[in-house]
Amino acid sequence: MPKSYRVRAELESLLAELSEGDPLPSERELALRCGVARETVRQAVRELLVEGRIRRQGRGTVVSRPKMVQPLSLRSYTEGALRFGRTPGRLLVGWTDVPAEPDVAQDLKIEPGTVVTHLERVLLADGERIGLESTWMPLPRFAFLREFYDPTTSLYAATRSRGIVYMSATERIETMLASPREAALLECTTALPMLLLHRRSVDAEGTPIERVRSLYRGDRIAFQATLRDY
Amino acid sequence: MPKSYRVRAELESLLAELSEGDPLPSERELALRCGVARETVRQAVRELLVEGRIRRQGRGTVVSRPKMVQPLSLRSYTEGALRFGRTPGRLLVGWTDVPAEPDVAQDLKIEPGTVVTHLERVLLADGERIGLESTWMPLPRFAFLREFYDPTTSLYAATRSRGIVYMSATERIETMLASPREAALLECTTALPMLLLHRRSVDAEGTPIERVRSLYRGDRIAFQATLRDY
Repeated sequence: MPKSYRVRAELESLLAELSEGDPLPSERELALRCGVARETVRQAVRELLVEGRIRRQGRGTVVSRPKMVQPLSLRSYTEGALRFGRTPGRLLVGWTDVPAEPDVAQDLKIEPGTVVTHLERVLLADGERIGLESTWMPLPRFAFLREFYDPTTSLYAATRSRGIVYMSATERIETMLASPREAALLECTTALPMLLLHRRSVDAEGTPIERVRSLYRGDRIAFQATLRDY
Repeated sequence: MPKSYRVRAELESLLAELSEGDPLPSERELALRCGVARETVRQAVRELLVEGRIRRQGRGTVVSRPKMVQPLSLRSYTEGALRFGRTPGRLLVGWTDVPAEPDVAQDLKIEPGTVVTHLERVLLADGERIGLESTWMPLPRFAFLREFYDPTTSLYAATRSRGIVYMSATERIETMLASPREAALLECTTALPMLLLHRRSVDAEGTPIERVRSLYRGDRIAFQATLRDY
């Protein structure tokens, strides 16, 4: 059995006995306990950090709460978070009207350079920063949002209240590293793997409603889909 | 505009002009061209490597082919790869009958320690290693596979040929770093973000067929789902 396995197995059985918030022994102590080099322990600890099983606290490491699991669905982030027992929230980063870049224009079926509204928000779960969401919507159709919409609340609820129907969406899921700006907004490092989702939603007539780019902290969230043989 | 943006924009416009396999200028040359420090260029290049837009070749960097996009569906890897125009393949890593670990037992609704068959394979696309798949199936129900199944071919095709119906599956999607063993099998580094999928499939009676853990190179693959308002 390779040393890295033994260390991982030792850490797993340790985690099974600990509760959320409990401190982990130091890397030095773990290395002694497992009879391996500190670098071997460090690699295993890094894996657990990236998986969100443990997190840094001060100079030590403590057991994390479980990752939030969100359904891949047309429902809003608000609904998904509430269903998982977390309090959703949003911080407004920016809300500007900008010329559409070619990729946004293609998704919204408009000419590049046409002005669209761009909303950028940090997604919170129980006050913790877990995602960064950018939404582009065509104008003038969605100009009405400026009149009454509070961007720290659910955008889907606001648009649905005006009779917009989210009929279907295509979602593409990838992994990447955050840019320095994104890492700063999500209070993490650029070495932490992120889940990147691109969504394009259309209404009942097939007219594009939005293009969304969401970047989620890979240590704090997982997505789940139910697949059926239609 | 921050320097990192300017570099990224410069690289994007450069990539737009280049074709698959074309070499990128050196980091030194790019730093000179953008008028920034080499570390700023290095960060942007690292992002593009992780996203699979470029790849190392010898001492240089060349433009990659686009990521393979796989549908999130009950169809097999074989079908998804073929539909995307890539030739699927598999390398057998191991096929053993082992006692079920607690998490595998829970998914298969059997007692922990019950013997299951465990198939581990490297998934190939046009000969390139893009994923590592572990499948656990209950025994004695799937003991028949030993009689005729070639593990470098589609497992779904083989089980379906014996009348097994994959009715629905739950798939959980996360991101993580590969362990040293996994990185070695996928011929990548442990710093490359990976997509981790856990699937549990059931038949028409709701009886578990398999538990699958698939680890995909984040620079080589993306997943896509179509969401509908049912």
